[in-house]
Amino acid sequence: MRNATYDAIIEFFRSLLDLMTASQDSDSLAFLFDLDGTLVDSVYQHVLAWREATQASGIELPVWRIHRQIGMSGGLMLHALWRETGRPVSKDEAERIQRLHADAFAKQAPSLRVLPGAQELLNALTAAHVPYAIATSGRLQSAQHTLELLQLPPETPVVTRDQVKRAKPDPDLFLAAAEQLRVPIAKCIVVGDSVWDLLAARRASALGVGLLSGGYGREELERAGAYRTYDDPADLLRHLDECGVRPDPPA
Amino acid sequence: MRNATYDAIIEFFRSLLDLMTASQDSDSLAFLFDLDGTLVDSVYQHVLAWREATQASGIELPVWRIHRQIGMSGGLMLHALWRETGRPVSKDEAERIQRLHADAFAKQAPSLRVLPGAQELLNALTAAHVPYAIATSGRLQSAQHTLELLQLPPETPVVTRDQVKRAKPDPDLFLAAAEQLRVPIAKCIVVGDSVWDLLAARRASALGVGLLSGGYGREELERAGAYRTYDDPADLLRHLDECGVRPDPPA
Repeated sequence: MRNATYDAIIEFFRSLLDLMTASQDSDSLAFLFDLDGTLVDSVYQHVLAWREATQASGIELPVWRIHRQIGMSGGLMLHALWRETGRPVSKDEAERIQRLHADAFAKQAPSLRVLPGAQELLNALTAAHVPYAIATSGRLQSAQHTLELLQLPPETPVVTRDQVKRAKPDPDLFLAAAEQLRVPIAKCIVVGDSVWDLLAARRASALGVGLLSGGYGREELERAGAYRTYDDPADLLRHLDECGVRPDPPA
Repeated sequence: MRNATYDAIIEFFRSLLDLMTASQDSDSLAFLFDLDGTLVDSVYQHVLAWREATQASGIELPVWRIHRQIGMSGGLMLHALWRETGRPVSKDEAERIQRLHADAFAKQAPSLRVLPGAQELLNALTAAHVPYAIATSGRLQSAQHTLELLQLPPETPVVTRDQVKRAKPDPDLFLAAAEQLRVPIAKCIVVGDSVWDLLAARRASALGVGLLSGGYGREELERAGAYRTYDDPADLLRHLDECGVRPDPPA
């Protein structure tokens, strides 16, 4: 009881703080970007790194099923994949698989590239005074390779798995990113390539925009609640008006 | 003119031969299987092998776009991918890329596995006296690694890229496979994981069945004309009745 009361008080002050610090502009808008498959072309490398890690542990999983779990929290993903195999896996083994994945993915680092239009999209948002943040289910250690490929202004909030209790499809990552931007979550557009991004966006009460650049089909993203779907960051940049971004910042 | 007439005569005799040799059983039915992503879990390895080959040639292509071209004839695929980059590629370079792909894919051979239910599905068709063939856009050299994983009865027709003029989405591979089985193409069910299989099936006048095991979305396959879509060969095996296969062979 004491904890519940304490949490309620904290929540009340947080809401009050949100109201006091939130942009007073009714046109306020911000973007919360997923990283892998959304800004950087790294999903397939992650897929085969998970495949290598699970296969090394004697777990045989069809690759397409791994692909469809990418973007979830690593822990949830291993749970989902074990449902497929029906083989229980110990905590130690799960940690070993996560380490093997990190090593296998690190080997792929030289082949990673920024997705077409990603840097230009971020630059356009900066020019239009639209704030943005990065929110990834990956841990900082493995996100570092990918973050280095982007030229992010030093003040850009980056929220990784290490900073929240639960990763996608829980809303925590996006809520934390919106909080760092001091923009109400309902004014945020979440951009992601996986259904987990879009489900987390719905759970956070943000608008979700889907990109095909992670290898999901358009309808899969739409059915997960995407407000709009674009090929890749370049295609989103060409259609920013559909998301309510005006080329000139609001007066 | 002479060539056109000659072709027409050849076509007439071929049709006559088809009619004379086709199974007289009105219940006749056969399956024509794609290989990569349909019977063997090899699509993602192909994707990253193409990525490695194009990147080594200085061509930067987002990986998801390569994924969506897998299953096409290699030549058509390179054309489609060059449309994305807008960079013309010489014939020598195209051949070099195809060689690099074959080498990169060969390195992945130890990680390849038969998809869940693939062998059981083929065995069930054999038991039900339903003939089947394999028809792949790959060349024999690279299909060999994957074919070795399956236990195919020695009489199983296998049609590769080397044996036809045009690969998928042209209908040639499936037409050749049906011909080898001596079953009219309209009585054949084409099973594939890519839209190119389903488009080729339509051009051949066969019924197409889609499998998600190559990483396409369900709706992508349905929109390309799939009569039904299943997760993988195991799921198709559980639903063979929907394709008109009766457990006991027709009397």
